[in-house]
Amino acid sequence: MRLSFVKSAKKEAFLYCAAVMGMFLLPFTIHGQKPSEYVNPFIGTSNYGATFPGPVVPWGMVSVVPYNVTPHEGNEYSNTDGWCSNPYVYNNELMTGFSHVNLSGVGCPDLGSILLMPTTGDLEVDFNRYGTAISNQEASPGYYSAFLDRYSIKAEATTTTRTGISRYTFPEGKANILLNLGHGLTNESGAFVKMVSDTEIEGYKLMGTFCYNPEAVIPVYFVVEFSKPAIKRGYWKKQPQLPGTRHQWSSTSGQFKIYDNYSRELAGEQIGAWYSFETEKGETIEAKVGVSYVSIENARKNLNAEQPAFDFEQTMAQAKERWNHQLSKIEVEGGSEEDKVKFYTALYHLLIHPNILQDVNGEYPAMESAEILKTDGHNRHTVFSLWDTYRNVHPLLTLVYPEQQTDMLNSMVDMYKESGWLPKWELYSRETNVMEGDPALVVLADSYLRGLTGFDVETAYEGMMKSAMSGGDENPLRPHNDFFKKNHFIAFRDSFDNTVSEALEFYVADYSLSRLALALGKKKDHEMLYERSLGYKKYFDPEYDLMRPLEADGTFMPNFDPMQGEMFEPVHGFHEGNSWQYSFAVPHDIRGLMRLMGGADRFVHQLERTFNDGLFDMSNEPDMGYPWFFNYVKGEEWRTQRTVRDCVNRYFHTGPDGLPGNDDTGTMSAWLLYSMMGFYPVSPADPVYTLSSPVFDRVTIHLDEDYFPGEKIVIESVNNSEDNIYIRKMELGGKPLRKFMISHDELIEKGYLKFYLDDQPDR
Amino acid sequence: MRLSFVKSAKKEAFLYCAAVMGMFLLPFTIHGQKPSEYVNPFIGTSNYGATFPGPVVPWGMVSVVPYNVTPHEGNEYSNTDGWCSNPYVYNNELMTGFSHVNLSGVGCPDLGSILLMPTTGDLEVDFNRYGTAISNQEASPGYYSAFLDRYSIKAEATTTTRTGISRYTFPEGKANILLNLGHGLTNESGAFVKMVSDTEIEGYKLMGTFCYNPEAVIPVYFVVEFSKPAIKRGYWKKQPQLPGTRHQWSSTSGQFKIYDNYSRELAGEQIGAWYSFETEKGETIEAKVGVSYVSIENARKNLNAEQPAFDFEQTMAQAKERWNHQLSKIEVEGGSEEDKVKFYTALYHLLIHPNILQDVNGEYPAMESAEILKTDGHNRHTVFSLWDTYRNVHPLLTLVYPEQQTDMLNSMVDMYKESGWLPKWELYSRETNVMEGDPALVVLADSYLRGLTGFDVETAYEGMMKSAMSGGDENPLRPHNDFFKKNHFIAFRDSFDNTVSEALEFYVADYSLSRLALALGKKKDHEMLYERSLGYKKYFDPEYDLMRPLEADGTFMPNFDPMQGEMFEPVHGFHEGNSWQYSFAVPHDIRGLMRLMGGADRFVHQLERTFNDGLFDMSNEPDMGYPWFFNYVKGEEWRTQRTVRDCVNRYFHTGPDGLPGNDDTGTMSAWLLYSMMGFYPVSPADPVYTLSSPVFDRVTIHLDEDYFPGEKIVIESVNNSEDNIYIRKMELGGKPLRKFMISHDELIEKGYLKFYLDDQPDR
Repeated sequence: MRLSFVKSAKKEAFLYCAAVMGMFLLPFTIHGQKPSEYVNPFIGTSNYGATFPGPVVPWGMVSVVPYNVTPHEGNEYSNTDGWCSNPYVYNNELMTGFSHVNLSGVGCPDLGSILLMPTTGDLEVDFNRYGTAISNQEASPGYYSAFLDRYSIKAEATTTTRTGISRYTFPEGKANILLNLGHGLTNESGAFVKMVSDTEIEGYKLMGTFCYNPEAVIPVYFVVEFSKPAIKRGYWKKQPQLPGTRHQWSSTSGQFKIYDNYSRELAGEQIGAWYSFETEKGETIEAKVGVSYVSIENARKNLNAEQPAFDFEQTMAQAKERWNHQLSKIEVEGGSEEDKVKFYTALYHLLIHPNILQDVNGEYPAMESAEILKTDGHNRHTVFSLWDTYRNVHPLLTLVYPEQQTDMLNSMVDMYKESGWLPKWELYSRETNVMEGDPALVVLADSYLRGLTGFDVETAYEGMMKSAMSGGDENPLRPHNDFFKKNHFIAFRDSFDNTVSEALEFYVADYSLSRLALALGKKKDHEMLYERSLGYKKYFDPEYDLMRPLEADGTFMPNFDPMQGEMFEPVHGFHEGNSWQYSFAVPHDIRGLMRLMGGADRFVHQLERTFNDGLFDMSNEPDMGYPWFFNYVKGEEWRTQRTVRDCVNRYFHTGPDGLPGNDDTGTMSAWLLYSMMGFYPVSPADPVYTLSSPVFDRVTIHLDEDYFPGEKIVIESVNNSEDNIYIRKMELGGKPLRKFMISHDELIEKGYLKFYLDDQPDR
Repeated sequence: MRLSFVKSAKKEAFLYCAAVMGMFLLPFTIHGQKPSEYVNPFIGTSNYGATFPGPVVPWGMVSVVPYNVTPHEGNEYSNTDGWCSNPYVYNNELMTGFSHVNLSGVGCPDLGSILLMPTTGDLEVDFNRYGTAISNQEASPGYYSAFLDRYSIKAEATTTTRTGISRYTFPEGKANILLNLGHGLTNESGAFVKMVSDTEIEGYKLMGTFCYNPEAVIPVYFVVEFSKPAIKRGYWKKQPQLPGTRHQWSSTSGQFKIYDNYSRELAGEQIGAWYSFETEKGETIEAKVGVSYVSIENARKNLNAEQPAFDFEQTMAQAKERWNHQLSKIEVEGGSEEDKVKFYTALYHLLIHPNILQDVNGEYPAMESAEILKTDGHNRHTVFSLWDTYRNVHPLLTLVYPEQQTDMLNSMVDMYKESGWLPKWELYSRETNVMEGDPALVVLADSYLRGLTGFDVETAYEGMMKSAMSGGDENPLRPHNDFFKKNHFIAFRDSFDNTVSEALEFYVADYSLSRLALALGKKKDHEMLYERSLGYKKYFDPEYDLMRPLEADGTFMPNFDPMQGEMFEPVHGFHEGNSWQYSFAVPHDIRGLMRLMGGADRFVHQLERTFNDGLFDMSNEPDMGYPWFFNYVKGEEWRTQRTVRDCVNRYFHTGPDGLPGNDDTGTMSAWLLYSMMGFYPVSPADPVYTLSSPVFDRVTIHLDEDYFPGEKIVIESVNNSEDNIYIRKMELGGKPLRKFMISHDELIEKGYLKFYLDDQPDR
């Protein structure tokens, strides 16, 4: 239930409401057993979290999201803002439809379209005029509902993998359902629509240009079916203004033109279809939407296969069941109700992307191509935000959802086969070229080394080496590779370039590939790449104990300001952060970095300063491993325990603004999940975890025995309480454990990790 | 050859050039035998004639027309003008492509789209920037060519019924062919396009809203094939401007965006596809375009059936052969070369509309419906500008092209079956509601009474009676029929309404139906309708001897100004003309009108005054019968001979401005053809002709013996010369003929009409 005073509340009131919202928003009881009942889909829907409250199934292609970022007086954020990447913002008031394709937790606008809007009364097709305030919002996994105040319509929605269904309960009188193809979050435009019958519409809409990359264009196909035949129906289009005097001669030039006597194909920019009905009081009309990224025909196949009938209740029950099945892979006991809500909501957000791409018949659009291919055995996944997710999403999926992670690995290798290059930020088979680095190498190596070998590693290795070694102009992932290969760094080029960030990513990627090379017996590659991965040392300026941009001759860039770059301001050499947020970002060689700094004391001092001086940024990826790095210094592990727990409590809570920033397709959530369970994959492609105190009394991770030699991992906390965040002693498999690093294999084989907690650090 | 100084010439110079143009423009020799060699397709391409110079076959669906009305400094007329109904204006300079669907001689903009534009050098997709001046234009039936100055490309085109083919001869270097779907003459917009391969494109574009009627929407489907594979290809779209700050963030917002890495479906408003090639000097690339009003699949079928190969020469030869076949139905001898050019060009323009609608498989879009139907036996015709064409186009087609006219009658009856109403101004199965009256009744009755009975006359009669008798709000053709049925006139409603014009059209329609009723033995209908057709007498004001608007109580509208309405200015009661131009427009009862005026002398005086005082308007239909009306007064027929010949010489010549105004889908041309042959169907649905002196020594009309009991009609002129325009005596079938009215049957049966001419009237 959305509190009615939130709408006009000041920030403080809003935050207060947000803080207590968990208790009101959800239909679960505190004695409920099912994990889905702990999920609050409103978490992250404010404060740039960019998650959405609408229903989706695990890794589902389709979600149904109330779209409320149309510019309007009551809307605090709107799609006129360059950054606005949310189809829904909790703080906003006015809703203009339910979008059927959406991205969760990303930082650029895309999708957020194929909008269905129920209205009543006379037909109004201008989205600037048909919006409504909503109330009584409810959201849980696989279900969303709201009351549309202006129209007195109750709207509910649920989904299957490739389809959505909405149920609208109308008052008596004239009812309309609008399908708007001209509005939405995506920056790409242009659509096609055809009324097939008085109960069916088909069409497609162009989406894409993610992060303003004009090449990343994606057509999305759909079929809409209504449970009741329309008594009138037609299209609309906002007519372009006709030139010269024609504008005066035409009654529709520059206007929303209603087509009520035309029912063949329509195409254009600002277009849509309207279906009108007469309804009795309380009458429901359901609208099913099938989606495909291949063709209209496939959208219809998806709809027929996944929702052969109109059965909202059963569809919703199945969606909930699927969530409970996946969320139950991790069981937590103890901790507060709020902890459980934070945890299961994070797990929920983890399981949205990379989502299924192929249709029920296996067809999917090939990477960077117009070809349509067919899957062979594994699911094809899409939406790989790899600069984010290599850090913790894929390691966590590897451990808990190895089948899906294996499918993702296969998807990535197939992308290489199809396009000649591994993905970086793949969105529905288009490389969007967002962020830098070569993160596919980390994911592939890390997963392989953690035991997921069910993919074509030879081909993967070929693709990884191609991206690591190709020079000239041909390498889209590493555009300055000739210089890098020779000098092991990237020279500062221009004001505000990202050269240091870029190089740091390549070191991590090269290190990962060097580990895989070693595992595959390719010793020379291993040595060459490992040496390259230590190139970071060139950037280290002992004057500051920080990374500093380098000129082409290897000297430091003059006029270095280590504080430049706070609050996403432009900065020389770094991307979305400053030198402080990148200087420890060599997870593969923290001990080497420590030596550069002059030893452990200096390292701890510098790392502590990051936190004490407010230089740490929880909302972005480069420094998200920092809290765990104290574990590299014996005797200082309590600092990790304190810092991790502080971050868990400070940056994450159960309100709509309960994420510190973009969820980054689950990366923030994965950080939270690990941190609440007490371990973290601190160094990519090193199959190790470093440890901290869990939030829960007991965590049980159910393993997939097809992939791992163990049934489950149990993590137990003795004397767990809110204050007892420090580890007094540890046991692994019943035997004392004294190190704070354990291997992935050890954890699985022993399967039982026990912490004894205290309110004081053991120093 | 286009004279180079025409471009900047003043009006006088232009008119001079136009007058001599016939000699230069055409590839025919004055000793040529084939009638197509007398056709100058440039006639009517200036002075609002609205004809086009590009190739088309008789009644062809497709024409290929150089589109040169894009706003530009060198373009005197442009599509920014509300009236501009020409894809091509002779006076204009800048061409921006070849349009593949076009209307000939209409008064409102439509079609003029599916534009192919060859260019060279770097890709430029903005039509405001890629235009070129053209030179060395040549046009003849089935062929057009021009040199594109800016690009040094020779462009040629020819057509089949449903397809076009262009041949571009390129210089050495980069060559591009652009398919623009966002530009053109039509006011409707929105298109879909898909690159099928490196030699093929498919798609459709919305057209319509003819005469600014937003309901008249028409999708046109196409397939384009190139004779050479493109080495690069892609789309473009003028991106709508993104809202707010997104505009700044995007590199393509509000710009022509080039899609060079996307090849699936595209939709939008300002869209197109570009195919790029490398060409050697003199290399030709051919582009075939198949069109359908049913589907892309049918467009492809049309293309495969009518142009299975790339064979420009053979396609052109077939087009010419088809023209010669049809044009040879009338042979003329004697007269000047210019007379022959005028005559055969008029015959050429007569045979463009109503054109074929159905595809090679017989499918066509049903009238006012989304249904696709299949023809059974006869061709389905479209583009019925019936307010114009009932007067003379259809009577002439009935006599000379009875097979096609029968198909047109069947098409009209089918439209009634499909939509419930007979057509008025039908355009590709949409009723555009242009002009007033009930002209289908005239055409159906007139053709039937002239002997074309090969249609479902019972159903036709049902449709005709429905439109004559339906009242209430349901009758789209006669919106005020309840009052009209009761009072036999329409009351003046508002300033500048068309009530008198409308009623005058209904009288002609009712008279026509009354004649058919009589022929079908429906005596009561006959009497009732005949009486109604005489309602015009109520409008006759003896104070002026003119028609004057009536108030609802039957009194005359006060403040009547008979001169109001000159030059298309607004006028009370009349449409596109003033009272003078309508007051004789009761061709079914000229003798009754004469009595109202007080006798023959007064009638002749009033009619003469129309011509002497410059009140006659040759450029529009209402008064186009006037020159022939002197024949109703015995002894005054010489005035018709003088006036008709004067009009033939004064308003029609062989320059681009050689038509007095819109050709009106052949209506002006039909008037000229009849007038040059010496007879005219002066009273619709009366199967009679009235006579005047022919321009030629001998005219032979070859009759279709499947329809008429005769092989041919020969019209001979003895002592014919430029000055001998007066008829001294006449013979029909070798026997003296003393009356100036003969029946259709007489003319056909006797088959031989002989005029003895003199330079003085026989008075």
